[in-house]
Amino acid sequence: MDYDLIIRNGAVATTDGSFEADIGVRGGVIVALARGLAGTAAEEVDAAGMLVLPGGVDTHTHIDQPPEGAVRQCDDFAAATTSAAAGGTTTVVCFAWQLPGTSLAAEVAAYHQRAAAARVDYAFHLTITDPTDTVLRDELPALIAAGNSSIKIFMTYAGSRLSDAQVLEVLEAARSNGALVCVHAEDDALIGHLTRRLIAEGKASPKYFPQSKPILGEAEAIRRIATYAELLDVPVHIFHVSGAEAAAEVERAQRRGVRLSAETCPQYLTFTAADLDRPGFEGAKLMFGPPPRSPQDHEALWRALRRGVLSVISSDHAPMRFDDPQGKKVAGEGAPFDRVPNGVPGIATRMRLIFSEGVSKGRIGIGEFVALTATRPAKLFGLYPRKGAIAIGSDADLVLWDPAHRGILTHAELWDANDYSPYEGMEVTGKPMITWLRGRRVYAGGQPVGGPGGGRFLARGIMRP
Amino acid sequence: MDYDLIIRNGAVATTDGSFEADIGVRGGVIVALARGLAGTAAEEVDAAGMLVLPGGVDTHTHIDQPPEGAVRQCDDFAAATTSAAAGGTTTVVCFAWQLPGTSLAAEVAAYHQRAAAARVDYAFHLTITDPTDTVLRDELPALIAAGNSSIKIFMTYAGSRLSDAQVLEVLEAARSNGALVCVHAEDDALIGHLTRRLIAEGKASPKYFPQSKPILGEAEAIRRIATYAELLDVPVHIFHVSGAEAAAEVERAQRRGVRLSAETCPQYLTFTAADLDRPGFEGAKLMFGPPPRSPQDHEALWRALRRGVLSVISSDHAPMRFDDPQGKKVAGEGAPFDRVPNGVPGIATRMRLIFSEGVSKGRIGIGEFVALTATRPAKLFGLYPRKGAIAIGSDADLVLWDPAHRGILTHAELWDANDYSPYEGMEVTGKPMITWLRGRRVYAGGQPVGGPGGGRFLARGIMRP
Amino acid sequence: MDYDLIIRNGAVATTDGSFEADIGVRGGVIVALARGLAGTAAEEVDAAGMLVLPGGVDTHTHIDQPPEGAVRQCDDFAAATTSAAAGGTTTVVCFAWQLPGTSLAAEVAAYHQRAAAARVDYAFHLTITDPTDTVLRDELPALIAAGNSSIKIFMTYAGSRLSDAQVLEVLEAARSNGALVCVHAEDDALIGHLTRRLIAEGKASPKYFPQSKPILGEAEAIRRIATYAELLDVPVHIFHVSGAEAAAEVERAQRRGVRLSAETCPQYLTFTAADLDRPGFEGAKLMFGPPPRSPQDHEALWRALRRGVLSVISSDHAPMRFDDPQGKKVAGEGAPFDRVPNGVPGIATRMRLIFSEGVSKGRIGIGEFVALTATRPAKLFGLYPRKGAIAIGSDADLVLWDPAHRGILTHAELWDANDYSPYEGMEVTGKPMITWLRGRRVYAGGQPVGGPGGGRFLARGIMRP
Amino acid sequence: MDYDLIIRNGAVATTDGSFEADIGVRGGVIVALARGLAGTAAEEVDAAGMLVLPGGVDTHTHIDQPPEGAVRQCDDFAAATTSAAAGGTTTVVCFAWQLPGTSLAAEVAAYHQRAAAARVDYAFHLTITDPTDTVLRDELPALIAAGNSSIKIFMTYAGSRLSDAQVLEVLEAARSNGALVCVHAEDDALIGHLTRRLIAEGKASPKYFPQSKPILGEAEAIRRIATYAELLDVPVHIFHVSGAEAAAEVERAQRRGVRLSAETCPQYLTFTAADLDRPGFEGAKLMFGPPPRSPQDHEALWRALRRGVLSVISSDHAPMRFDDPQGKKVAGEGAPFDRVPNGVPGIATRMRLIFSEGVSKGRIGIGEFVALTATRPAKLFGLYPRKGAIAIGSDADLVLWDPAHRGILTHAELWDANDYSPYEGMEVTGKPMITWLRGRRVYAGGQPVGGPGGGRFLARGIMRP
Repeated sequence: MDYDLIIRNGAVATTDGSFEADIGVRGGVIVALARGLAGTAAEEVDAAGMLVLPGGVDTHTHIDQPPEGAVRQCDDFAAATTSAAAGGTTTVVCFAWQLPGTSLAAEVAAYHQRAAAARVDYAFHLTITDPTDTVLRDELPALIAAGNSSIKIFMTYAGSRLSDAQVLEVLEAARSNGALVCVHAEDDALIGHLTRRLIAEGKASPKYFPQSKPILGEAEAIRRIATYAELLDVPVHIFHVSGAEAAAEVERAQRRGVRLSAETCPQYLTFTAADLDRPGFEGAKLMFGPPPRSPQDHEALWRALRRGVLSVISSDHAPMRFDDPQGKKVAGEGAPFDRVPNGVPGIATRMRLIFSEGVSKGRIGIGEFVALTATRPAKLFGLYPRKGAIAIGSDADLVLWDPAHRGILTHAELWDANDYSPYEGMEVTGKPMITWLRGRRVYAGGQPVGGPGGGRFLARGIMRP
Repeated sequence: MDYDLIIRNGAVATTDGSFEADIGVRGGVIVALARGLAGTAAEEVDAAGMLVLPGGVDTHTHIDQPPEGAVRQCDDFAAATTSAAAGGTTTVVCFAWQLPGTSLAAEVAAYHQRAAAARVDYAFHLTITDPTDTVLRDELPALIAAGNSSIKIFMTYAGSRLSDAQVLEVLEAARSNGALVCVHAEDDALIGHLTRRLIAEGKASPKYFPQSKPILGEAEAIRRIATYAELLDVPVHIFHVSGAEAAAEVERAQRRGVRLSAETCPQYLTFTAADLDRPGFEGAKLMFGPPPRSPQDHEALWRALRRGVLSVISSDHAPMRFDDPQGKKVAGEGAPFDRVPNGVPGIATRMRLIFSEGVSKGRIGIGEFVALTATRPAKLFGLYPRKGAIAIGSDADLVLWDPAHRGILTHAELWDANDYSPYEGMEVTGKPMITWLRGRRVYAGGQPVGGPGGGRFLARGIMRP
Repeated sequence: MDYDLIIRNGAVATTDGSFEADIGVRGGVIVALARGLAGTAAEEVDAAGMLVLPGGVDTHTHIDQPPEGAVRQCDDFAAATTSAAAGGTTTVVCFAWQLPGTSLAAEVAAYHQRAAAARVDYAFHLTITDPTDTVLRDELPALIAAGNSSIKIFMTYAGSRLSDAQVLEVLEAARSNGALVCVHAEDDALIGHLTRRLIAEGKASPKYFPQSKPILGEAEAIRRIATYAELLDVPVHIFHVSGAEAAAEVERAQRRGVRLSAETCPQYLTFTAADLDRPGFEGAKLMFGPPPRSPQDHEALWRALRRGVLSVISSDHAPMRFDDPQGKKVAGEGAPFDRVPNGVPGIATRMRLIFSEGVSKGRIGIGEFVALTATRPAKLFGLYPRKGAIAIGSDADLVLWDPAHRGILTHAELWDANDYSPYEGMEVTGKPMITWLRGRRVYAGGQPVGGPGGGRFLARGIMRP
Repeated sequence: MDYDLIIRNGAVATTDGSFEADIGVRGGVIVALARGLAGTAAEEVDAAGMLVLPGGVDTHTHIDQPPEGAVRQCDDFAAATTSAAAGGTTTVVCFAWQLPGTSLAAEVAAYHQRAAAARVDYAFHLTITDPTDTVLRDELPALIAAGNSSIKIFMTYAGSRLSDAQVLEVLEAARSNGALVCVHAEDDALIGHLTRRLIAEGKASPKYFPQSKPILGEAEAIRRIATYAELLDVPVHIFHVSGAEAAAEVERAQRRGVRLSAETCPQYLTFTAADLDRPGFEGAKLMFGPPPRSPQDHEALWRALRRGVLSVISSDHAPMRFDDPQGKKVAGEGAPFDRVPNGVPGIATRMRLIFSEGVSKGRIGIGEFVALTATRPAKLFGLYPRKGAIAIGSDADLVLWDPAHRGILTHAELWDANDYSPYEGMEVTGKPMITWLRGRRVYAGGQPVGGPGGGRFLARGIMRP
């Protein structure tokens, strides 16, 4: 046997487009790309008429986090990474999440243990919610040096948010130690004020939730963190940009030369605020923050994606069951929107939605699709060239993708531990048929292959100062 | 006698320029403007070759405020308003300043008493530093209804600043009760962070002070308050815009249709950050916040003034003695800059500096001078047409101004209680020769006329919702 | 008699608002403003409850121009200025219009003769359509020095337009001689191209006319002339800005410090492109260039007026009869839109429309109304303080204005020589009751007073280099 | 033999960076990329320590054009393409240049003949200087269909420039037939005006040349063509963007969604206007249009390149000998600058300058270098994936590049027919050691390999409408 795996005759996708070639894999690594590749392999697949994609890299996922109060995210590593594999994603970056008053290092250690069940490869963002001296001075340098070179902070959400002073301290520490800081940027005070006003006015059902988190408050918070990034000269990445004015603020900073990057997520390209107006408590299924905006915002986001203002599409997978006292109904059915936990699952649907809405509808090319879902996130977070590309020497994380498949999304095929999908019933074009992690099948024929586990921790290098 | 006062042959200045006319005053009010005014008066003045200006309206002055800790502003009402009159200013709006834990209503009452010594007319901004329910719900409505229809809040300075949540509550209360909210807009967390870093690096002398308060932090805070103003639909006025990027942010909001107005002050048009680099502790004499910027910022501010982006020039008179343990040296000579109280006197020099730098140097016309120093501040704060204009029915607050006078500014002629002027030794063109308040001389021949007192409280109407 | 005219108890309007005063006029000049003005007058008017406005200054009017081909504008000086007086306008600036191949000086001389019939005061813009050496070097300096210190040029319209090279030569000559250059800024080539395409596609009726002159072409031409103005350092005034993108381009230049001013006209604040879709040939009554845009553009223009980006509202009075082989039907009823002459009458309706749409509907204050319709145009074109203000020494051009009058506009009350008004049937609030020119009634009680003539030529000073 | 050529152990460069791999070539095409590629080849090269780049794609070159008057560009196809190969460029797009009054089709035919001497592959832009009906309707469709799917037009230069009306006609024809329009965008009238003024003032030496072509005129012309592109919905590519304000205008259009792309050239990243101030006539060696600007513009251009606003770096190779009556001295040594032909050679130096100034100095990464010099120009002009990439199935146009080589640029090693290089004496890092065209060496060891000829015409597909 010359190879462990040969995929023949596929259209191999890169950030520049696609070309027809056979792919030869040995030892988990891509070792050959060729026309008419000589040799044999233990597994040979004919990909004629198919795309072969680099496995998706999803750099914004909540997996098996510690519960916050009574709320528990339902996906452990086994569930979330099976769901990832089913969706064509082979690398996830999730959150090693410090709860206030606890040790970040201890959480990372525990997270490593829980992650043993992962079916795809993984890395950790360090979520800092309590930036004590111990955390910033004693723990952080070693944690970053150990390959966790990205930090997540919140500008909103009680229990998670940092004060502006703390934000600045974290940025300073990130700069000293070589980490990228990812930010949930929304104006907390504004959200609190509007929420109180809406609830007081009796506007408490899910459909009012978007009014509590206006895009102007998001844009303003982006401007704030961009100002900090500029003055402290530290790279910052904005999570889940939701619409036109937020993207414009990102661009404005980039034009000044600020080292600011940003992502959006499928939910901001598919839903609108109006979609939350569903009967009963159903709107809670679409409650995530920031909220979705308008069709005009969708097009503004696509334009920003094409122009490179936004360089990543992640899922912000945040799985909470709907009909569950540890999920959306933690405060009961019909609770006011400020008592409903935010977040939706999406790790399995990210690639399909973007392929369908983007590539199939002509908004982006296949090269841009690869860049947004795999290559650029891998590069930004220090995973490239190991991940995010079909290139000699890269891990053989590959997806056999049927570009012509048309189907209806149903929760049944997503393999997460949730009890619903926000995309239930949506018609999409394109589907992952087989997913390989380092040359080994992890998903095929609509089923996970083998048991959980097998994913590896990805230690990442530090960021340039 | 037909009139109490006739000023003949002067060039009467309005926002549109000047025209030659005689002015007839009766009962403290301008009752006639005419060529060759018939009749006689108790006082007749020949103003040939002179300008006659509407008395200056200075809408940002600190007078006789309660001490903060050991720091005491040195000007009581007698001193500050004598200084105002000496500088051609006949209306001041100063701060009825709530200290945390105290009643705003009580402070206003006390302030009324202290103001009895005022030599010019006065109104109060309500400075809120502790927006308790009692203040916002019980006291504020009556105080605004009683003619104090403007509020001052701080986004920075320990002891004065409000949290963003409090800012929003005050804006909401202002909207309900019809008040304009004036804002000291600088990013507090950023200033704290940079200050700590500079001090830690041993950069503690006054010349490092401007680095602790970068204009990007000012622009960012303006953006934040403008966002709040837009979302809550409430008018906001930005105090002491210090340079290009801050003015650009004001303009950006105005272009969106936000009801945002703004002022600058003479110190931002005359000093630069480099001016703080003086021997010994002398730089402390130029410590005010935000700090002065650069010559390019001066020109950007003049352009913004001409284009109406900035519509007011105030003094931000904040008198603290230099060689004084209750003033700049409260923490001793050579204390680190974060221990030096901010502020400079300027109530007497405002009109002369703007006339000299603006009108005499051709940057603005006489109409713009009148607009910026008298008419627009009067209009913005509800004092017009009683104040801020030479028009029939307006108060006869008048200044005989020699436009050709060239002189050197010295502290001796400013009549405040300070021990220095930041402008000492500066050559200026133009000088007030006589100042009348409601037809009565309050300053003439280089001397105050009569004793203190005589100024009246100006109750102002509420703002449109 | 102490005065020729006293108007008592009116609300005297200035750019700052209004104040109650009596006005005393002698020798055609305002000599007194007073409370309870002593003395008597040949004419005394009680203006209680009324506004007294400075007579309108309309700085963009086509009056008694030489015919172009078969097209003849229908208003001679008698008709146009009677119409002006009926609308509260007492100063017009019209075009001494050089036809290609003719002498500009000769045209000015002839124009002076024709203007003897004017009922209000007048000045001339020099319309240059053929900038030969003779015109620019031999004629222009003397014409400017004789008080015609403004030039009009066209960037579009065959027979009138200058090439870009000629535009630059005229700007250079204007700079040397101290004239302001007014520009009709639209991209000629683009209009030609789109017109040919539309006609070829059979889209020839008036409703397609706006598509031939898109606002992007207007904005582009403004950008071009602003670039020339910046590089040659010469003041330029943009005529008839029609909507948002054009105004934005004006502002962009102003922000750079370019000496660029601009006007709009009532037709751009009241009509939209959709209004041209009328039965039969009726749409031709609303054909003027640039065309009207959209309701969003109306609001953008009002915002630009409030913010000072646009500083003048003129009429662009261009009277061509509708049912007339020398007017709109020069090429016959139903001719393709490129054969229909552009222009609408508006000299009589300008003040009423702006008062009604602006002041009565709360979009601008009375001060802004005075500024836009009288003071600022007078200042910009060198007519102030003689014209455009109620101030001591200014010409007694006054309008008794009933602010509460509600009525329907009909052509019958406009006193021009046209056969229609585009505003026929529109309901407006506010109406001029009496118009005085230099203290003499020229219109009252719905009728012109006396015969034509009596208007004077206004020689204007040169512009600062 | 398994392959014609194997390059082993090199760092293979793509737009995403580089990876180590062996490259196998057969039949002129890349057929294998592998670790430890099995098999043998006629030519085997060890590239350890070297980069292997895709051959450069230079989409803006003047080669063997018909003389204009007495001026003759000195490079025929043999010289220019030898120079290209020496500089690591294997594809050139040059101009089939219609002279006024001639047939474009005939010129293309003649150009095909002259191009037989080409040593690298080539394609043609159709330069239209006389857009008659014959050209646009009879010739253009067939020429585009034959693979010449790009058009070049000039907005300035007598003899070449089109009127705006002609520009619009060409854009319309390009849209109908599926061609991209490349534009030399500068305001012709402005340049003419300033040139005449400068010459008249005696400012005629080369150092005044940049003053005749200010960047504001370039930005204005870009705005004009972008407006046309937007309104006609046709893709346009801006040639040689020279500095900040021009790039800002490109970006502004892109932000609106206009299909506008743009390039810059090495000369705008290395020279400044001040460099033209050389003794005697030496400044003529740096005369090209638009002219170079300032160091600030260099940095603005790099930023625009990194952000994707500018997506291509071409050479604008325009070889005219200096000491030659058919070159720079056509009007004699010391002729006024408007008599000196514009243009500099650069086909051989493009890749080295950008590698040195960009990659070696840390301004861009190797991926961006490949994108700007090969992949993106190939994609934009319809040459990808055949050209511009090292990928399976792509032409084996390859360059063995020594990234560590430091040397001094001298004209001797550039192999063109010129008598100077503007870069003479400049120190650069990085050098092409061997250049292969479709697997065959065309340059190696500092020498061309074999005789001229061997390059092929590249027919390109049409652009999407």
